[in-house]
Amino acid sequence: MSKLSSLLLCAISAVSTLSVADEGMWQPHQLPSISKELTAAGLELNPTDLTNLTEFPMGAIVSLGGCTASFVSDQALVVSNHHCVYGSVQYNSTEENNLLKNGFLAKSFAEELPAAPGQRIYVTEEITEVTPLIKGGITTAMKGDERYKFIDTNSKKLVSQCEQDKNYRCSVVNFHGGLEYYLFKQLMIRDVRLVHAPASSVGKYGGDIDNWMWPRHTGDYGFYRAYVGKDGQPADYSVDNVPYQPKHHLKVNKASVNEDDYIMVLGYPGRTNRYRVASEVEHQFTWAYPVAKSYREEIINLIHENSEVGSDKRIKYQNELASLANYAKNYGSLIESYNKGTTLERKQQLEAQLSTWINSNPKRKAKYGSALSGINKLVNDSQEFAPRSYVLSYMARSKLLTTANKLHRLAIEKAKPDLERQRGYQERDMDRFAQGMKTINRRLDLDIDQKILTHMLTHYAALPEKQRIKELDQFFALENGLNETALKSKLDAIYKTTELADEETRLAWMNKSVEEFNNSNDPFIQLAVNTFKSRKAIEDSSKELAGNLQAYRPKFMEALIAYNKSKDIPVYADANSTLRVTYGNVKGYSPKDGITAAPFTTVEGIVAKDTGAFPFDAPKKQLDLINKRQYGSYTKDDLNTVPVNFLGTLDITGGNSGSPTLNSKAEFVGLVFDGVYESIIGGWDYDAKLNRSIHVDVRYMLWVMEHIDGATNLIDEMDIVEMSANGEVTTTVAE
Amino acid sequence: MSKLSSLLLCAISAVSTLSVADEGMWQPHQLPSISKELTAAGLELNPTDLTNLTEFPMGAIVSLGGCTASFVSDQALVVSNHHCVYGSVQYNSTEENNLLKNGFLAKSFAEELPAAPGQRIYVTEEITEVTPLIKGGITTAMKGDERYKFIDTNSKKLVSQCEQDKNYRCSVVNFHGGLEYYLFKQLMIRDVRLVHAPASSVGKYGGDIDNWMWPRHTGDYGFYRAYVGKDGQPADYSVDNVPYQPKHHLKVNKASVNEDDYIMVLGYPGRTNRYRVASEVEHQFTWAYPVAKSYREEIINLIHENSEVGSDKRIKYQNELASLANYAKNYGSLIESYNKGTTLERKQQLEAQLSTWINSNPKRKAKYGSALSGINKLVNDSQEFAPRSYVLSYMARSKLLTTANKLHRLAIEKAKPDLERQRGYQERDMDRFAQGMKTINRRLDLDIDQKILTHMLTHYAALPEKQRIKELDQFFALENGLNETALKSKLDAIYKTTELADEETRLAWMNKSVEEFNNSNDPFIQLAVNTFKSRKAIEDSSKELAGNLQAYRPKFMEALIAYNKSKDIPVYADANSTLRVTYGNVKGYSPKDGITAAPFTTVEGIVAKDTGAFPFDAPKKQLDLINKRQYGSYTKDDLNTVPVNFLGTLDITGGNSGSPTLNSKAEFVGLVFDGVYESIIGGWDYDAKLNRSIHVDVRYMLWVMEHIDGATNLIDEMDIVEMSANGEVTTTVAE
Repeated sequence: MSKLSSLLLCAISAVSTLSVADEGMWQPHQLPSISKELTAAGLELNPTDLTNLTEFPMGAIVSLGGCTASFVSDQALVVSNHHCVYGSVQYNSTEENNLLKNGFLAKSFAEELPAAPGQRIYVTEEITEVTPLIKGGITTAMKGDERYKFIDTNSKKLVSQCEQDKNYRCSVVNFHGGLEYYLFKQLMIRDVRLVHAPASSVGKYGGDIDNWMWPRHTGDYGFYRAYVGKDGQPADYSVDNVPYQPKHHLKVNKASVNEDDYIMVLGYPGRTNRYRVASEVEHQFTWAYPVAKSYREEIINLIHENSEVGSDKRIKYQNELASLANYAKNYGSLIESYNKGTTLERKQQLEAQLSTWINSNPKRKAKYGSALSGINKLVNDSQEFAPRSYVLSYMARSKLLTTANKLHRLAIEKAKPDLERQRGYQERDMDRFAQGMKTINRRLDLDIDQKILTHMLTHYAALPEKQRIKELDQFFALENGLNETALKSKLDAIYKTTELADEETRLAWMNKSVEEFNNSNDPFIQLAVNTFKSRKAIEDSSKELAGNLQAYRPKFMEALIAYNKSKDIPVYADANSTLRVTYGNVKGYSPKDGITAAPFTTVEGIVAKDTGAFPFDAPKKQLDLINKRQYGSYTKDDLNTVPVNFLGTLDITGGNSGSPTLNSKAEFVGLVFDGVYESIIGGWDYDAKLNRSIHVDVRYMLWVMEHIDGATNLIDEMDIVEMSANGEVTTTVAE
Repeated sequence: MSKLSSLLLCAISAVSTLSVADEGMWQPHQLPSISKELTAAGLELNPTDLTNLTEFPMGAIVSLGGCTASFVSDQALVVSNHHCVYGSVQYNSTEENNLLKNGFLAKSFAEELPAAPGQRIYVTEEITEVTPLIKGGITTAMKGDERYKFIDTNSKKLVSQCEQDKNYRCSVVNFHGGLEYYLFKQLMIRDVRLVHAPASSVGKYGGDIDNWMWPRHTGDYGFYRAYVGKDGQPADYSVDNVPYQPKHHLKVNKASVNEDDYIMVLGYPGRTNRYRVASEVEHQFTWAYPVAKSYREEIINLIHENSEVGSDKRIKYQNELASLANYAKNYGSLIESYNKGTTLERKQQLEAQLSTWINSNPKRKAKYGSALSGINKLVNDSQEFAPRSYVLSYMARSKLLTTANKLHRLAIEKAKPDLERQRGYQERDMDRFAQGMKTINRRLDLDIDQKILTHMLTHYAALPEKQRIKELDQFFALENGLNETALKSKLDAIYKTTELADEETRLAWMNKSVEEFNNSNDPFIQLAVNTFKSRKAIEDSSKELAGNLQAYRPKFMEALIAYNKSKDIPVYADANSTLRVTYGNVKGYSPKDGITAAPFTTVEGIVAKDTGAFPFDAPKKQLDLINKRQYGSYTKDDLNTVPVNFLGTLDITGGNSGSPTLNSKAEFVGLVFDGVYESIIGGWDYDAKLNRSIHVDVRYMLWVMEHIDGATNLIDEMDIVEMSANGEVTTTVAE
């Protein structure tokens, strides 16, 4: 630990400051409180202008559900990442007309294609603080499960009320661990069409190899268009629909940005854990991530060993493999960054300082004194059962096991009034539920499913007695330890007997009663029925835990906010898929001593990386143009070529994908689409030296659109600004 | 090939210029002809001052044979690379006193240890052009073998004459492919002592993983001292010997260098191939390197498969494995750089331009017209037999096979007068020969030796009829193809029977007659005897080729030099282990788009790289000092820490290892010890954008010596300059 001591000394001065330069995912209403910082960074607008959701520029930002996007024309042309429109490109691809490979361009509105089923565009119209409506009436006497239910019920009521207008999707979201609650009301546009996507060899250039990596050369952009009925209201797909008329859209600044320029990203970051207490952080990085990483790697190996490359079997698991590998890599980076860095030490420092501050004042002590110890006690108790929780969660990767559990649960929930049902089993969820039941077979191979279940059962069998589920032990005869041969014949029989691999059967079970489940002979359903009570008890205890944490975590956050307020430091909330603003500058970084990541990559880098083989197989036309230096009007003078991607200091996370990158005048200059490897720990900790966002440069996007894909109709549709934000006229090298 | 077209256009303007900025390994006498360039780069001395071998600074530069070194005190303290003194550290290491691991420091002259046997320090005292003495009398009528022998004999005569004084080692070296010959006369100091080497965890930090890599953090330095008899003449080791008194030694500039500063390296670069013709280059990169790479990788796998990690067997082959892997990696980089770059295209361009220039003038045409085509014809003919040549050369990795061949050859050569013997078999070579015969067993395992021979015999058996050796076919019964089982029993028997694995037996054979070889029953000796005639014929034909090339290559180089002279461009000769000067500047580079290699690494990078496990296991004391920022007077202001290594644009190659890096006033500021990965192709081609030398920064060397190893006696012995070359006083941050 000696290497930490001096680093700690250096870090101490920063420790008490929650928000350092460029850190922070700010709620729009908070921006005036950081106006000094915004202006210092280079913002040329009044920060107050960014607070109004229905005005420029916020009115131009939309959610795709999991991704962010923005309007870039008055005809509701929407730009986002290639990987955010990927599903719709895939949906419209056929063997004869491989849009994924070749890309797609609608040269007219009529040629636009329907997006993948379920694709929506959400326009946030109202954000209302509803804390009193959610928490009013909570008493300290309440037990955990009561508190949980109280909040859950109030929240469901508000959502249901808000969704009376079927054109809206609503959600109640907690901030600061339950200190505040906000109701989000989003217009839900249901007719979304695919307008343009470059070839995957542009939009996904570098593939998984370059994922989270710099230098990067990915043209990660694509276009949708939002359609509504002739009355201007959201409508299901119809040829008669017309483009939505957004009140605001972004101008596109062709001059892009220079090193050190102000940039900001408006979007919907998914989830961060910046305010977890030290004991949670330590458990997560020293136990949870390592375990999850090895479970993932074990399942990957198992799939590899049991399916040949290119076989149907393998193809069915291609997506699952990618996702397993993606997070195994992600967890690896998290563990690596944690071990190298001082995240835990700084947490501990902060908690010590906060405690000192609380205890130095009797009133504060009375109010906040129990918060941290309360959290620690609860967290500590729950960690004992983390091994079971992880085993069960990876066991659920057996699709038949999970299907049976879900169908059985549906029967139980359906017997209740809608508002009292478990989330995911309400009427509003049924379309998606049925969709899920339909698509299973595309990604299911019985042999591999059985092998995954077998493998996780061996982990399960190694759990201590206290963490075992009696009915599961009985069902698989694990009471006296695991007998491999016996387990195998049992599972062979189960997989032979079950009918859940059949789509019609599954759909039929969606409408059956609890009684019918109880009488079923399907072994997976029997298993679901037998274990339900135990599993429900586990679920209830986790709700109980959540309810109990509600007694402490909001207090802890209140104390932390008060502590920072005493030092005039505003506190941003953890990301929770709601609209946020992050700002900073275009800037390289040093990933390691002796190496600097330059802030821009260039098209010449594509030629250098290109091998001709996926994922480094740029279109021949593109390579030819680069070799001939045919850059049209997109040359960036100081680089003497076209920039492809650039680095920023912005504090982003998953969900920010597709967010527009804006300059100091809120003009579109690119799209954020990834972070560098060293930023992966950003979900837990922001390191100003290493945290870098990766953006597509608008020059590259426009150059490819104009010179390679001929998407001039879209360029014509957008409002193009020719001058850089600081007033310099863009000069371009003549061809 | 499309990606090359535009690159070629850019390159054409540079194609006719052989020496671009910083390219060139200049003979000292050439420096006045590039004085303008030297001054422009920043040299503050008169270039003429660098031409005199016995004056400052040239008089301070010495050769260690394979490495370079320099005098840094008037008591003949010699500094070189850690990897250049490594053998002597190893030689003095014991299990109880592991100097390799712990490092070594003599606190007084008396504590200095004898260097490894055979270690010499060579001081070049005279360089004389001897072209007329070597080539005078050659006629165009001579056949290849005659011409070869003529040159060989003249050369041996001059060497023998020069070495009448046993204190000197002499050599005749050809320049420009035989256009010029020089006689080098070097004082040979035989009593060399080890003075200081840091722990390997400093001197070899990063090991093979970091070899050829940037960022780098290696303290690759070590010290010898040269001793002579009381009469000042070289002498064998004796306690009565006294330190040599060099006429000149380098001052050590503690301020080191800054980015862009002038630096130069004086040293003994080993071998380059910058003037090979296009057909040779193409064959080398598209055939020879790929074949050699795969033979090496095959042998590596074979050793791995047949010896367990940590076993005696494996340990015996550790060095061979390292060397096999080292060059396999090297060849991989060469092939990679070649495929990415335009080396061949520029060669072809240059040859086309040269031909045009030659043919544009009847006199030139008459004189040089046949040179290139002559080389091409000879090279082309010889390439047909390259497969056999490579198979035999890797087959020679069977140590028993090679031992038998060498011993038998010795008997044959010994029958001739010394001057007529093959190089390597003259009296002057006998000590080294015997040494070689003694050390074999430390690196020999009969099972692996047999497996290597078997493996290469399968390659051999696949050669076309024309390239086969009849007696080898007969000996192993390969006439009708290879029968694995038969070959195995034959080899089993051979390895069981042979006595060459015994040291005494080998040494005894050194004194036996050809007759005795002919009558031997040892199967390897029988094989050597049987195949001698055929192998000799192959050797003769390669000498014939060399002799024939002598008729063309000097002409080609003469033409090239004349062509360049017509454009006022001086031409440096290929490296040939003789004293050269290369100059340039401290400078980073971009190894790929979006990434920059900074010119300096810092001690903080050691902490970041450190894993605690070899080769990233810096001494605890060092890590502690870094964590406490105890940098003494060695902080470089702009970095606010101690620099470890820096990058230069110098044109170096193997043999330059240990060369002092000098500033504009010829003061010592570091040691060159490696090149970056992208420079490996430097043996064939210099790319100003990518070619970077790697140097130990003198600040790091002195900081470790003073603060970690306590080598203050050596620092006190050196002349330390406290001011930077440009006159700024070194300021240091107080501790």
